[in-house]
Amino acid sequence: MLFDKNILQKIDEELKTYVDKDDKLYNASKHLLFAGGKRIRPYLAVVTYMLKKDDIEEVLPAAAAVELIHNYTLIHDDIMDHDDERRGKPTVHVVFGEPMAILAGDLLYAKAFEAVSKIKDNKKAHEVLKILSKACVEVCEGQAMDMEFENYYPTMDEYLEMIRKKTGALLEASVEIGAVMADCNEEERNALKEYAKRIGLTFQIQDDVLDLIGDEKKLGKPVGSDIREGKKTIIVIHALKTLDEDKKKRLLNILGNKDIKDEEIKEAIEILKPSIEYAKELMKQKTEEAKEYLKIFDKDRRKVLEDLADFIISRIY
Amino acid sequence: MLFDKNILQKIDEELKTYVDKDDKLYNASKHLLFAGGKRIRPYLAVVTYMLKKDDIEEVLPAAAAVELIHNYTLIHDDIMDHDDERRGKPTVHVVFGEPMAILAGDLLYAKAFEAVSKIKDNKKAHEVLKILSKACVEVCEGQAMDMEFENYYPTMDEYLEMIRKKTGALLEASVEIGAVMADCNEEERNALKEYAKRIGLTFQIQDDVLDLIGDEKKLGKPVGSDIREGKKTIIVIHALKTLDEDKKKRLLNILGNKDIKDEEIKEAIEILKPSIEYAKELMKQKTEEAKEYLKIFDKDRRKVLEDLADFIISRIY
Repeated sequence: MLFDKNILQKIDEELKTYVDKDDKLYNASKHLLFAGGKRIRPYLAVVTYMLKKDDIEEVLPAAAAVELIHNYTLIHDDIMDHDDERRGKPTVHVVFGEPMAILAGDLLYAKAFEAVSKIKDNKKAHEVLKILSKACVEVCEGQAMDMEFENYYPTMDEYLEMIRKKTGALLEASVEIGAVMADCNEEERNALKEYAKRIGLTFQIQDDVLDLIGDEKKLGKPVGSDIREGKKTIIVIHALKTLDEDKKKRLLNILGNKDIKDEEIKEAIEILKPSIEYAKELMKQKTEEAKEYLKIFDKDRRKVLEDLADFIISRIY
Repeated sequence: MLFDKNILQKIDEELKTYVDKDDKLYNASKHLLFAGGKRIRPYLAVVTYMLKKDDIEEVLPAAAAVELIHNYTLIHDDIMDHDDERRGKPTVHVVFGEPMAILAGDLLYAKAFEAVSKIKDNKKAHEVLKILSKACVEVCEGQAMDMEFENYYPTMDEYLEMIRKKTGALLEASVEIGAVMADCNEEERNALKEYAKRIGLTFQIQDDVLDLIGDEKKLGKPVGSDIREGKKTIIVIHALKTLDEDKKKRLLNILGNKDIKDEEIKEAIEILKPSIEYAKELMKQKTEEAKEYLKIFDKDRRKVLEDLADFIISRIY
């Protein structure tokens, strides 16, 4: 099975040890952490580790660290973006107020590095610290770029840099941290970084595709939300580069218009169809490349990472 | 001289290396960082290090880390407390907006741990990571307690726990990190922790005293702000425990009343006088205890830390 229940349970047990208090701050910190996240990042860390090693206890604190960082970013992003719901549930700041939500994010941030400090081996702890702190810097830089994009249409290169930082950096770090904990050599580590870069990219693109052609119930948000919000996704940027003037004009009229009707969203999706196809093709290509980089590892052991690459672009939420 | 300019300059140069970019995010992150802070925490780390060692290059990344953490907490606290000014200047969220201010704090948070990762020795980096991440957890817990105090009058014990976490934890961590970097043994490290606990306490109490009897211009805020805001300081908590019923009633009427006149603030300060004296006595006692713990160190080398303990309770802003 792709997501091994036993591993997921161990990740959750590890996560619980970091937030094992019952007061307002800790309850705010736990609100999202145990609200049904997919655990893709810690899972990536664990299954990367399992390319070379079996006893996963050693990698669990590092795996918890990336999930704690991911959750802090979600809590703070929801405040910044004024999002009231996530996964169909009210966001932390809606339930606990903004000040407590900021603080809950800050606590998870601290707990992530506390988790890194639990790694027993000094050299590995140091290495994981380097990787994770660098990723945290990039996540902030990516989020700042994304916020700036509200004011203009970025080029494809700017867009790709933004998602590599905002979404990719932590996914890459998850894989790299798994590699460090498993004592991977330089060649293996580099191959895994290349793998991770590609699945980070496809992860974000699939999010953008799902917003346009996904299932509302599974997503927990209406189809086309990104169009209503005028979000600059790879699909929109590709469309603006390739569409004829009439269609481009029509699309720009619809994008970011909060009062548009459902038919207009459907019309925009129709206009975006060739760009959705482009995005799907790009994802396929990147997924194949990602899997190619895994070839230096044992066939049986690499299977989960191959399946994960496929899962990312076939997932429906 | 108490604050050696050469050391302060080296701390600032080290800090600059972490925020050496010129865009909105980095400018927001630098806004407060180079706005005239006293650098007490990194200075403590450096001069603690100098109890045993001379070449301070080794300790600078660790020293930068505590200052970066301190600055992230100030930025986020100002958002949570809706404070528009700090040190007589507009706060980060006033200048850059709340979303960018949250993110600027998050970036400094990441940069702090990036700074720790720059420590060359694996064992020391790991040890500093343990100390700093634990302190960050406590700072959040202390801030949450402080926020809860808005809804009730805490006991003296609750109050002391709050300031030990909110203010003390990072000051203690600064000293302990200096000790780790200087290869202090267990006995030395414990003595320094006891020293730091006491100066952390006096640091917060002096802040509270200055708010009542300090110089408005030096403080950059009007005298008695804490009274207007109804802040529960050690002075207020002591007063409520020791005053007769009439004075207690009068004080409770004034505290937290946003519309009170200057005469009423003066009246409250008059009522609080015995408790201000109590606070001053407590600080003196704790400062003496703090200095006593330094006695195991070389007389010449420990002098700066002794002077710093004295400075904290004699400073006027």
